[in-house]
Amino acid sequence: MPTNRLEAFSDGVLAIIITIMVLELRVPHDANAAALWRLAPVFLSYVLSFIYIGIYWNNHHHMLRLTERVTGGVLWANLHLLFWLSLFPFATGWMGENHFAADPTALYGVVLFMAAVAYWILQRTIIAGQGDGSPLARAIGGDWKGKLSPALYAIAIVAAFRATWLSQLLYVAVALIWLVPDRRIERFVAAEVIKRR
Amino acid sequence: MPTNRLEAFSDGVLAIIITIMVLELRVPHDANAAALWRLAPVFLSYVLSFIYIGIYWNNHHHMLRLTERVTGGVLWANLHLLFWLSLFPFATGWMGENHFAADPTALYGVVLFMAAVAYWILQRTIIAGQGDGSPLARAIGGDWKGKLSPALYAIAIVAAFRATWLSQLLYVAVALIWLVPDRRIERFVAAEVIKRR
Amino acid sequence: MPTNRLEAFSDGVLAIIITIMVLELRVPHDANAAALWRLAPVFLSYVLSFIYIGIYWNNHHHMLRLTERVTGGVLWANLHLLFWLSLFPFATGWMGENHFAADPTALYGVVLFMAAVAYWILQRTIIAGQGDGSPLARAIGGDWKGKLSPALYAIAIVAAFRATWLSQLLYVAVALIWLVPDRRIERFVAAEVIKRR
Amino acid sequence: MPTNRLEAFSDGVLAIIITIMVLELRVPHDANAAALWRLAPVFLSYVLSFIYIGIYWNNHHHMLRLTERVTGGVLWANLHLLFWLSLFPFATGWMGENHFAADPTALYGVVLFMAAVAYWILQRTIIAGQGDGSPLARAIGGDWKGKLSPALYAIAIVAAFRATWLSQLLYVAVALIWLVPDRRIERFVAAEVIKRR
Repeated sequence: MPTNRLEAFSDGVLAIIITIMVLELRVPHDANAAALWRLAPVFLSYVLSFIYIGIYWNNHHHMLRLTERVTGGVLWANLHLLFWLSLFPFATGWMGENHFAADPTALYGVVLFMAAVAYWILQRTIIAGQGDGSPLARAIGGDWKGKLSPALYAIAIVAAFRATWLSQLLYVAVALIWLVPDRRIERFVAAEVIKRR
Repeated sequence: MPTNRLEAFSDGVLAIIITIMVLELRVPHDANAAALWRLAPVFLSYVLSFIYIGIYWNNHHHMLRLTERVTGGVLWANLHLLFWLSLFPFATGWMGENHFAADPTALYGVVLFMAAVAYWILQRTIIAGQGDGSPLARAIGGDWKGKLSPALYAIAIVAAFRATWLSQLLYVAVALIWLVPDRRIERFVAAEVIKRR
Repeated sequence: MPTNRLEAFSDGVLAIIITIMVLELRVPHDANAAALWRLAPVFLSYVLSFIYIGIYWNNHHHMLRLTERVTGGVLWANLHLLFWLSLFPFATGWMGENHFAADPTALYGVVLFMAAVAYWILQRTIIAGQGDGSPLARAIGGDWKGKLSPALYAIAIVAAFRATWLSQLLYVAVALIWLVPDRRIERFVAAEVIKRR
Repeated sequence: MPTNRLEAFSDGVLAIIITIMVLELRVPHDANAAALWRLAPVFLSYVLSFIYIGIYWNNHHHMLRLTERVTGGVLWANLHLLFWLSLFPFATGWMGENHFAADPTALYGVVLFMAAVAYWILQRTIIAGQGDGSPLARAIGGDWKGKLSPALYAIAIVAAFRATWLSQLLYVAVALIWLVPDRRIERFVAAEVIKRR
């Protein structure tokens, strides 16, 4: 089975998630800058989540470029990932509207953690289907980002109840880690795709 | 007429249905775990519906892989299926917000039942257009899952007014029946697609 | 310019319109059949609008199959059509929630009328770009459905203030006119597409 | 990396933005023309934003026709553009519901300004990746529209606090500037695409 319909469906879901998140930014009744200012925490959490969904879309895009066979297992592992990502608008809205309070901050971390685990499961499912010398396995290599992220999310979840600012800092830090371009993987993907033609 | 635009449109509608269902999970005003806990029934019904839409997307994907001609009849049978699936967010929200009360539980069963009937009609329409030796007819074979499911939904609808827990059990059971991978069909589809090239 | 991205964008917008219309069917707080019954008018207007959007998607699909060049004019004529279709959720919700009162019924007719006009403009723009012997011009022929529909919508708009039931009857009648399969056009499109290969 | 998945994702996001904007047009409870009339400012701001998103989709479409390589930088520049466009529904709703008051009018200008800057960054990123003799660089030429628009938005932001009508006039004027078909670019794109085959 080719990957195009899986990509199209995932793109659709990710596009909707990233866009309906903005609906949590409710139009205030007052027409002054103060009303806007009160939305600052919701806006900031929207920006953070937008970047996270962008990172997932980006990585998902690269991963599927190195995937050829879509099995039933891959379909369900992908839906599992989309499930956790679909909770982003809820977690983002709750955290933003409560000005980064402890419980919502922890929940945000739980959603991030579960999405990272789901991504890892999808990755392993694809690699298992590719057998030895899997191009995806070689592309991700040690995958230190994929291993470090859930660990930092776990710390952030615990920290939420003691020092919420630390959790927020960790969420931003992990996003930055992924934003730094990883030219090595990009080059690998390009080389691999050219080779196959 | 090729199937690609039908797939694209169906993917779009399914992606939106699966994502707007999460909007029923309304952000609570309180920032504590108790507020989250009160959302548990809505969350559980969301998980169930997410899995059901995932199953439909999955089966729809396989079915269209074995379809070549899209006639006007297929277009409308497909829209009919999408209509019933579009009622999932409503039925899910009503059942979740009322903590699996009798009437909403029965309605959820009605929507499941009608979606199953609509899927069956779409299947028959495609098979009728393929004529004798239809690859789709051979792929689905006896189609015991497709026949058992509406029967179980019908039992669940009646049970809702006596033993609501039984209805819920049946909804979960049918989902599990479909989740168990059907390697036979998957292999058939793969073989059929290769043969045609 | 090829038509594929225009199709993809239109499919996306139509898929979203058809799906967000269901959001007007608000989850009732009471968990009994009476609460559901009160939603009947909203549900009926949803069914009608679902069928109309389905008809538009269907016709749009056929029209673009006979279109090869997408000019700037076609892009904007298409956006103009999507604009009027995007008002369906609003007009549907207003008519349903007010139990088919006069003013909302008239507005529904105005939106239907404007969408029909926009469709006609899009059709003329494509035909003008194809020059003499336009395959689309030959496919639609006399286009009696396209000419009759706006006339009936106009009657329905006026009738809304005197006999609202007549307007509703006309909306249903026009939908039925389009639902009756037009095998002639379907065959023409198929023949034309085969010829070009 | 080919551009098709970037286009599909952008199409999805733009289709959703253009469609959820209409949700700000809330269904009134009263069933009379007066209730509809009160929505006029929200409707007008919806029309303006619909046209702006249409222009962005149109230009984005042309730009990507002249783009061959999608680098990580292009992916993120594109997401950055989508981020600012995703704030259209919010800015549109706030401006419309407050009858074009000063602060919301200024915010609308800020969103337009930032989107224009993001578009310019995306354009520069693509051109930089194409190196000397970039077809995109030659297609846009002096790009007077792209340079004039942010300047006019900046004036409109300042004007909002003195003469709000001037801001509105400028927003409409810039939209008209882009709506006037630019046959030169269209012809260039067509010629370029033919040449490459």
